[in-house]
Amino acid sequence: MAAQQGPRRGKRSDKPTIADVAALAGVSVSAVSKVVNNRPGISPPTRQRVLDAAEKLRWSPSATAVALRGARTRAIGMVAGRAADVLAADPHFSVLISGIEAELAPADYGLLLHIVGEEPSAEERAYRRLAEERRVDGVILTESRIGDTRFELLRQLRLPAVLVGTPWRDDPVVSVRAGGEQDAGIREAVDHLADLGHRHIAYVSGPEDRVHTVFRRRVFEAALEERGLRPTRIVVSEFTADAAVRAVRQLLAEPQRRPTAVLFANDTMAVAGMSAARRLGFEVPRDLSIVGYDDLPIGELVYPRLTTIGQDLVQLGRSAATAMFALLDGSPESAQPPPVRPPSLIPRESTGPAGGVGG
Amino acid sequence: MAAQQGPRRGKRSDKPTIADVAALAGVSVSAVSKVVNNRPGISPPTRQRVLDAAEKLRWSPSATAVALRGARTRAIGMVAGRAADVLAADPHFSVLISGIEAELAPADYGLLLHIVGEEPSAEERAYRRLAEERRVDGVILTESRIGDTRFELLRQLRLPAVLVGTPWRDDPVVSVRAGGEQDAGIREAVDHLADLGHRHIAYVSGPEDRVHTVFRRRVFEAALEERGLRPTRIVVSEFTADAAVRAVRQLLAEPQRRPTAVLFANDTMAVAGMSAARRLGFEVPRDLSIVGYDDLPIGELVYPRLTTIGQDLVQLGRSAATAMFALLDGSPESAQPPPVRPPSLIPRESTGPAGGVGG
Repeated sequence: MAAQQGPRRGKRSDKPTIADVAALAGVSVSAVSKVVNNRPGISPPTRQRVLDAAEKLRWSPSATAVALRGARTRAIGMVAGRAADVLAADPHFSVLISGIEAELAPADYGLLLHIVGEEPSAEERAYRRLAEERRVDGVILTESRIGDTRFELLRQLRLPAVLVGTPWRDDPVVSVRAGGEQDAGIREAVDHLADLGHRHIAYVSGPEDRVHTVFRRRVFEAALEERGLRPTRIVVSEFTADAAVRAVRQLLAEPQRRPTAVLFANDTMAVAGMSAARRLGFEVPRDLSIVGYDDLPIGELVYPRLTTIGQDLVQLGRSAATAMFALLDGSPESAQPPPVRPPSLIPRESTGPAGGVGG
Repeated sequence: MAAQQGPRRGKRSDKPTIADVAALAGVSVSAVSKVVNNRPGISPPTRQRVLDAAEKLRWSPSATAVALRGARTRAIGMVAGRAADVLAADPHFSVLISGIEAELAPADYGLLLHIVGEEPSAEERAYRRLAEERRVDGVILTESRIGDTRFELLRQLRLPAVLVGTPWRDDPVVSVRAGGEQDAGIREAVDHLADLGHRHIAYVSGPEDRVHTVFRRRVFEAALEERGLRPTRIVVSEFTADAAVRAVRQLLAEPQRRPTAVLFANDTMAVAGMSAARRLGFEVPRDLSIVGYDDLPIGELVYPRLTTIGQDLVQLGRSAATAMFALLDGSPESAQPPPVRPPSLIPRESTGPAGGVGG
């Protein structure tokens, strides 16, 4: 480090210098600099000695501003505008965080997680605090919304931001998303079910203020139309297991409108829906085929194993972290990381030929 | 806060004061103090004005040390010495974090998560960095180990620490744990199975370097003995779904040693084990009863619903955060929060009378 190695001898002034502090503390100038800039590599006792020397000499860095501005926090923020139990209830987030952590950990970065509840202004307040208190170097966002106001806010706050997912229209944000055709996995799932003879396919969708919800529903309808089919039912639902159970009860209640296959917006809902169907006496896949979305670990734990549309959430998380580091290094042009493999169908045991009691 | 309200008028010196900065920036002295101490409530433009004024006057707080020492980070650290995918693979952590976040969010605190991999020194390095760089106000630990060295390290680093779980012997750490008899839930599970006529009960346990693993195994053996029984088998396993599948294959392979009921160390393992048994042709609970541990959401999603030993992980997380705030407020005597309800059996559908093919 090309730090200044001592005071300029000729000029005497009342003002203590960094070298005076270093001398009194018995450490190098660069060690004092590290303490001031909160950089690693200084033991707590040495740190204390430096702080004591600085206090004794009434020395402080020529501009505190430099220290306050310059030091990286080595933390990336993630604010979830969801209920406190979101990590437990929606493992999608946990998998994404796994991917983010896989890149942060080797760089000695941590992920500062704020789960702020569903009140809309709470997320904005959290971003403002993170920016004002300089607690993170940047933030990773998820769940792109229609008319999303977060990107403009973060631009005003000068907080670097990376979105996991597809921005709505020309939202001004670096984003990472799966490569290939938008939601090709949905099309593959529809083809898979149609090839198995299904003509009555329902879709249990997520809340329609999410960008991906709207995209996926469109692809679902277009893919059915290409096979000369129309959706048997589309149920718009919350992303919860309880909502999935209610949707399945509703879908299976009327024999004349009963689907032989159901696509769910995520794996948790699909597993809950599968159990609800079996509890109502429908065997899976004999009487009802089930398809999930995300390829979460739960899909492989259950019996029958869940057919699902796999997206590489771990790689999406890794890419988001990589893009963030590129932004922080001042090379936004390289912040667009290599594309993540497109979502695609993973056929397992929960789908089978149409032709059971509902077929 | 008793911040200095202005310069002493009598004495003139070359050194600018906080009041000069406040005057130049057109803000109050306390606003300057807030900027310097990274406290909330200052808008970014105001903050910028203060920093510019400080730079122009070449002013810095009388002791940078005060700023560096005094400011809270509003972050609590959690270091997991586990693989990057731990949150996805072991939802136990996700639920605990949900509880921690439920207390942190209203206090405007975030959780700084470091998942550092399983190399033993990585966790220590992470704590050292967190302490040296003052990135968190304190840390919450989990997975108490036998001969745990983390508490002594954190004491040396002066990093306040709260353990979720039972410390080994007299480890010097504030801990939060469930009330009541240690692992009473295991006893209830054994009684439940014995009452259902089971005489051949196996246990798939976690790694034996964990304190809770050792405690629970002892309680399991003692509870069986009280019913005049001995464990059919104890399989020591990793906390993974794959390990659970291997354990079940092993347990069901030899008809003469086959258990009619299996307790698992966690719910993920229990669900994976249940699916493995069914894939081998054993109906649950007709041929094999299954009990999990933790009461994670997955247990209610699957069919049959999982009988499990419920511990209130959300409340444990909340209590850990509450204890941390008490420590940070300098009232360690009140850091021992109200006890969390004891673990207890939640009978659902995966346990039934002994007497199937293996009974």
